[in-house]
Amino acid sequence: MEAAAVRQGPETGPEARRRTVTWEDPLIGARAAGSMSGLQYMQAIAGGEVPRPPIALLLDMSIVEVEPGRAVFELDPAEFQFNPIGSVHGGVLATLLDSAMGCAVHAMLPAGTGYTTLELKVNFLRRVTTETGRLRCEGSVIHVGRTVATAEARVVDGGGRLVAHATTTCLVIGPSSEGSAP
Amino acid sequence: MEAAAVRQGPETGPEARRRTVTWEDPLIGARAAGSMSGLQYMQAIAGGEVPRPPIALLLDMSIVEVEPGRAVFELDPAEFQFNPIGSVHGGVLATLLDSAMGCAVHAMLPAGTGYTTLELKVNFLRRVTTETGRLRCEGSVIHVGRTVATAEARVVDGGGRLVAHATTTCLVIGPSSEGSAP
Amino acid sequence: MEAAAVRQGPETGPEARRRTVTWEDPLIGARAAGSMSGLQYMQAIAGGEVPRPPIALLLDMSIVEVEPGRAVFELDPAEFQFNPIGSVHGGVLATLLDSAMGCAVHAMLPAGTGYTTLELKVNFLRRVTTETGRLRCEGSVIHVGRTVATAEARVVDGGGRLVAHATTTCLVIGPSSEGSAP
Amino acid sequence: MEAAAVRQGPETGPEARRRTVTWEDPLIGARAAGSMSGLQYMQAIAGGEVPRPPIALLLDMSIVEVEPGRAVFELDPAEFQFNPIGSVHGGVLATLLDSAMGCAVHAMLPAGTGYTTLELKVNFLRRVTTETGRLRCEGSVIHVGRTVATAEARVVDGGGRLVAHATTTCLVIGPSSEGSAP
Repeated sequence: MEAAAVRQGPETGPEARRRTVTWEDPLIGARAAGSMSGLQYMQAIAGGEVPRPPIALLLDMSIVEVEPGRAVFELDPAEFQFNPIGSVHGGVLATLLDSAMGCAVHAMLPAGTGYTTLELKVNFLRRVTTETGRLRCEGSVIHVGRTVATAEARVVDGGGRLVAHATTTCLVIGPSSEGSAP
Repeated sequence: MEAAAVRQGPETGPEARRRTVTWEDPLIGARAAGSMSGLQYMQAIAGGEVPRPPIALLLDMSIVEVEPGRAVFELDPAEFQFNPIGSVHGGVLATLLDSAMGCAVHAMLPAGTGYTTLELKVNFLRRVTTETGRLRCEGSVIHVGRTVATAEARVVDGGGRLVAHATTTCLVIGPSSEGSAP
Repeated sequence: MEAAAVRQGPETGPEARRRTVTWEDPLIGARAAGSMSGLQYMQAIAGGEVPRPPIALLLDMSIVEVEPGRAVFELDPAEFQFNPIGSVHGGVLATLLDSAMGCAVHAMLPAGTGYTTLELKVNFLRRVTTETGRLRCEGSVIHVGRTVATAEARVVDGGGRLVAHATTTCLVIGPSSEGSAP
Repeated sequence: MEAAAVRQGPETGPEARRRTVTWEDPLIGARAAGSMSGLQYMQAIAGGEVPRPPIALLLDMSIVEVEPGRAVFELDPAEFQFNPIGSVHGGVLATLLDSAMGCAVHAMLPAGTGYTTLELKVNFLRRVTTETGRLRCEGSVIHVGRTVATAEARVVDGGGRLVAHATTTCLVIGPSSEGSAP
């Protein structure tokens, strides 16, 4: 069964809007991840062999490219992502940037190895509304060491204008580690 | 009409989950904001007089307290917020922290003045799952100047354990400014 | 022999200034650190039993208080710290903040354990000149886990005004680790 | 008269080291800056027509290239820059990175316009010692808007290995602004 997000227009008047999101058990994917390298796992999500994670369906965000040290996500700005001041909430852009950077790092890690994001730093350059057009976010690894990895990402809009950029620091969790929180 | 988020359990088998979110035109609130101070606007949202913004309904996030320079949000961790590695996506925590800090700053600004978030820095300390319990996020202003404001926020779980913390830099947009992007 | 920094006035005319700094082999202290807890080592520096590190003498920066999870440094703004635009270089404030946060973390670690700073984030709020008066910087631990620690710090001037603030993420290096770079 | 930094070896025994730094009134340069574009000012410093700022002489840091939106600095790691744990203090790298990014931004600004650094975020990847060899730090502008600019920088060692990287957010101060702190 394919997980799906259905956006519907106003139903009970000009001020009402509705969005229904359906997803599958995220543990299916998380379990599958155990026997794959990070790159294989991301490719399996991108290729539809492993269910998309709930957050991607909730925010209408997709991974469109992934290779070692690099991942690209896309997201269509929509009203359901809006903050109280009439534009896409910065947290939605932070989620997009964090996803692209985390996947770029993950795609460098062998099977049995994981990572956890220690910190994330985002700069917001342009207000995003439904008129902005589809956003493309490319994440790239800067450094991958034995215990620490860093990455960066940029979001551009349909017109190629830079909307936001970010960096992150991740802890690499080796097969011998317990894999618990930092 | 009250905007509402309805969470429903699996419907077509153990792997399917569904969430339907309904919201109102976010421009109603944004327009109302024009004649209010930031504090009045936040209080109107907290008190239900102005519709909750779509992002708050989408993520199941609520403002529970607001006063000059301080705002508190709550969020219940849920599966629909999960990343591909089986926990709440860091971007959801970033959204919660950004909201609390932005509102803490906004609640210091007089009517006719706005702000835009220039940058956000988040540290993640603990993995969050559905077993974590309700999260509480308190944002506080550090500095409010003529053109720049900074703030910080912390997320704690039901057991009082620190889950994440953040700082932000905002640009204050005076009544004479055009209010456009930085 | 006591290490010392000697500031001298103009010698060859109104435009010439000179500063001479003398320090001791920093490996004396680094070696002494091996058998002490972080707190003992910081206290030995504060008490003059271990030589002050070169950077502290170079910048005229002193540790004045240290206890588990908290450290206070002081620095007198001076012309030799100036940037090309006529005020104390932000990097000097970053050094002060990094020192206070690193020492606050270090003062929580038992003998045989070390740390390395993964990242540092500084906000600058006020221009600092020689008229600002002595700066006081207090660093405090936010979180100390098995592998990661975070801390924050603030710089205030003689009038109690906030000049800059920062956060940091450190990697804790246990006795079994190799202690090498991340 | 040329400002100069003289490094001398141990004089009173194996544990004593001395460094004497001479600089010129930094207000000479700051005043000259008023009638130049940022690029002209940086080029005048790089070319020796305007005195090097005190911090550059203190830390033995030089601007070696500057063009619109890009600046390169170099620094030789030395013992006088050491922290208490036997390596170059992270604040020295932060100063180098901040300088390269600030100059890259400044080199985009017309005469009569200035900037102030709002925040700085640095990642440290490798411990630096006197064996590391000369560091090269390249700063590049990411975005320059009407009121805000962002930039990034990287430090590499003599072997081309990445040592640290950073981003910054600056406030652009137009000719009509008062040029005061944020």
